[in-house]
Amino acid sequence: MLIKNGKVLLFDKENVSIENKDILIKEGKIVNIADDIDISGEQIIDATNKIVMPGLINTHTHIAMCIFRATFEGCNLFTWLNEKIWPIEEKLTKEEIYKASLFSIVEMISTGTTCFNDQYFMPEETRKAVEEVGMRAVLTRPLMDTDGSDVNEKVQEFRNFYESRNKENELINYSVAPHGLYTCSGSCLAEARKLALEYNLPIHVHFLESVDEISSIKELHGENASSVLKKYFDGIHTILAHGVKLNDEDIDIIKNMDCGIAHNPVSNLRLGCKIADITKYQREGINVALGTDGAGSGNNLDMFEALRTACLMQGGIHEDEGRITSKDAIKMATINGAKLLGLEDKIGSIEVGKDADIILVDISEKLDHICMLPNNDLLSNLVYNTSGRDVDTTIIKGKIIMKNRKFEQLDVGSIIENVKQISLK
Amino acid sequence: MLIKNGKVLLFDKENVSIENKDILIKEGKIVNIADDIDISGEQIIDATNKIVMPGLINTHTHIAMCIFRATFEGCNLFTWLNEKIWPIEEKLTKEEIYKASLFSIVEMISTGTTCFNDQYFMPEETRKAVEEVGMRAVLTRPLMDTDGSDVNEKVQEFRNFYESRNKENELINYSVAPHGLYTCSGSCLAEARKLALEYNLPIHVHFLESVDEISSIKELHGENASSVLKKYFDGIHTILAHGVKLNDEDIDIIKNMDCGIAHNPVSNLRLGCKIADITKYQREGINVALGTDGAGSGNNLDMFEALRTACLMQGGIHEDEGRITSKDAIKMATINGAKLLGLEDKIGSIEVGKDADIILVDISEKLDHICMLPNNDLLSNLVYNTSGRDVDTTIIKGKIIMKNRKFEQLDVGSIIENVKQISLK
Repeated sequence: MLIKNGKVLLFDKENVSIENKDILIKEGKIVNIADDIDISGEQIIDATNKIVMPGLINTHTHIAMCIFRATFEGCNLFTWLNEKIWPIEEKLTKEEIYKASLFSIVEMISTGTTCFNDQYFMPEETRKAVEEVGMRAVLTRPLMDTDGSDVNEKVQEFRNFYESRNKENELINYSVAPHGLYTCSGSCLAEARKLALEYNLPIHVHFLESVDEISSIKELHGENASSVLKKYFDGIHTILAHGVKLNDEDIDIIKNMDCGIAHNPVSNLRLGCKIADITKYQREGINVALGTDGAGSGNNLDMFEALRTACLMQGGIHEDEGRITSKDAIKMATINGAKLLGLEDKIGSIEVGKDADIILVDISEKLDHICMLPNNDLLSNLVYNTSGRDVDTTIIKGKIIMKNRKFEQLDVGSIIENVKQISLK
Repeated sequence: MLIKNGKVLLFDKENVSIENKDILIKEGKIVNIADDIDISGEQIIDATNKIVMPGLINTHTHIAMCIFRATFEGCNLFTWLNEKIWPIEEKLTKEEIYKASLFSIVEMISTGTTCFNDQYFMPEETRKAVEEVGMRAVLTRPLMDTDGSDVNEKVQEFRNFYESRNKENELINYSVAPHGLYTCSGSCLAEARKLALEYNLPIHVHFLESVDEISSIKELHGENASSVLKKYFDGIHTILAHGVKLNDEDIDIIKNMDCGIAHNPVSNLRLGCKIADITKYQREGINVALGTDGAGSGNNLDMFEALRTACLMQGGIHEDEGRITSKDAIKMATINGAKLLGLEDKIGSIEVGKDADIILVDISEKLDHICMLPNNDLLSNLVYNTSGRDVDTTIIKGKIIMKNRKFEQLDVGSIIENVKQISLK
């Protein structure tokens, strides 16, 4: 496959640039990036008036939660979870989780995401949908026990899920996910550590999302959040979802661990969690990537909204002109996400040798793009004036999943209708 | 004209609802809103699968600034104005301001704005574009003298502009606009007061947008911003653009004046001005409306982005669950905007007797709308998951300006090309 005539987003160390290049793909991998590749017999994708960029990496999701979209506005995290979400989640069936997952994968692919890092129950159903579409994902069966669950049972569920994986499918990776330090006892966290070491998997944990969490963790563990984190997960690659409430002591501990942050700007704002100081985190050398969280709190799975909101929000806490820029945000949504998930050898940038997880973003000069015209700066517009709807084509490991906004192999109408029925119920 | 089968957004005192209604329009005014109006011979607009809502009111703009879109990221207000914008603005020609204004009017109409409150130099050029399209606007020739301008000359320019108006055109209103309290001396503000009283016009002034402004005003006038405001504009209806930095004393003064705030969430964030506490302002009884500011700082003129960002941002400063909701934001972008501009008798809501400034927003269940599906709550989705691109039809005073995303009377391609040329220059 040959992607011709595109404006290709490239990273060169700290620099981010857009260059006119062609990209040659063979057996799912990028094999050449050059000025004018001309090889007959290839499937050619014309990328004229399109930005060609790495597929976006959504580093924190609960994708089946699309059924909760546009509900329970104005709640804060604890009210929302305890009083609204968890009581309804108890009633969800396997089939509903499968259908909701399939829907969200369509939402992600149609808005340019090629990899997501999920944490939800009945993950076999989500995996089924992921395999069906050919999506890339990091999946898990989360652990939790402060709700009265039996840790051993949950650990066994994780083992069953992980052991039943199709080892041939290189697109699916796994994590061990203690839900949060406020929802997992010490023995639950110890089990998570054991699993991560036994299977050589990263940890994916909710961490200091809300102010109430700080005191809950102190009460449950008798220690501050970062000390608990260090105690159980030191030496293990750890994906911290949120990290909104880090104080200087937390930052000191975290920057010396193998940790990074999945920042979910829209969800944090919607749940009244205030603003994570990602400008500071980056300055301190902590890897920050982006996510949407579930659509119940994050509104949608459109990573372009996460990009835009992440950048803008820093102007809400920094008068300092050194706050993060659109270039930083683009890296957060791509290469930093790959690093956070431990997949930077495979994805996150357009580089020879990496898998071809690539999206084409339409920037043609038409009425629907008037909000980005005159296009004085492609990178700035990509962050501030581009929507997931501008994604024209999505390719995962060299396979076209969506082309010209059409899914050849999926019946999108039925997928939408199925989720509508679940939501009505 | 009869708008049939739509989901109509209605206000009833504090309540905001969506109801299935038909709307009959005669001579530019709404004459009936009822369940099933059937009158033969009318021009029928089918609003099936569309929300029918009041046109959005953008209460603070500098529309010709579209040429600065996606430039100078990361600057704060004073750097941006002094070092970047003002030196370039000096070189703009009349024709360029006309072309840029025309472009921005297309951007606004295509994203659902039917009225804007502008403040820019050479306003004759903007007025020419407004008249050409049939847009509704509040225009002015701003006053400023700390840059060395002669106040009398600027006042004369305002008079010439105002006196040369076409009195037949009810769509164009006027304000008197001292640029800001940090850019106008006491004598300049006194002249503004005189003009406002003489012509019975509101004041439109930049007010406490950035932290640097506080000390600049103190230095220039020897008093705090609110005291200066009260001294010159007490008793005059005043539109305060921004109002980000109000302390309790400012709030006390302002809530007892005939003032309201044009909140520009995206621009405030982009210029590192932090977050206006509009939740508090509303609680204190101050009228808050929405704006985009110019596209140089506000990224675009899409009021749906202003709606979404305004709501989300409050979760950046309020853990309190009483922060503003999507319903509040919808009123800010419509009826509150009309009140702020002194036009609430004419526009801002769909009510019998008001002018028909109406937009139709497409909410059909298709891939491009997957981010709002399942549509559990129309109002919430209207704020959180709708883009200006979903605006299908825009009607101003009963006249269709855009229908099915087509402008019958404008050559959008040339309008875009003209602005591209200015920007290249």
